[in-house]
Amino acid sequence: MRATVRVMLKDGVLDPQGEAVRHALGALGFDGVNGVRQGKVIELDLAEGATEAQVTEMCEKLLANTVIESYSVEMG
Amino acid sequence: MRATVRVMLKDGVLDPQGEAVRHALGALGFDGVNGVRQGKVIELDLAEGATEAQVTEMCEKLLANTVIESYSVEMG
Repeated sequence: MRATVRVMLKDGVLDPQGEAVRHALGALGFDGVNGVRQGKVIELDLAEGATEAQVTEMCEKLLANTVIESYSVEMG
Repeated sequence: MRATVRVMLKDGVLDPQGEAVRHALGALGFDGVNGVRQGKVIELDLAEGATEAQVTEMCEKLLANTVIESYSVEMG
């Protein structure tokens, strides 16, 4: 089964990657881009029977730095 | 308005980041992780009236390297 984890920097944490993308979009002539935040998406291919609780534990232990990042888990 | 772009390496393209995560999960005792792919998620805060076609153009020109990456756009 499949699980998708999305990890984003928390609001208020400076996101230099996102800022770089915003500047680059402006330089390319794309107007009206007010803000950009960049995060990670991690697709896990898991053995049958894996639970959301297990994936949440993976996030807490490895996938996200919960001091500065928030995450969401989507199963299936 | 908000747009979310998800950029993943295409199937068949080696994903060292994903492999590193898979190894680390195994080392932490998480069994049954058959595969991991890691990609980017980019959240765009756009002026009202922005269209999906504009976001697609951003992907083609900047956000994704379409030689090795695929992307998906979600509006709203």
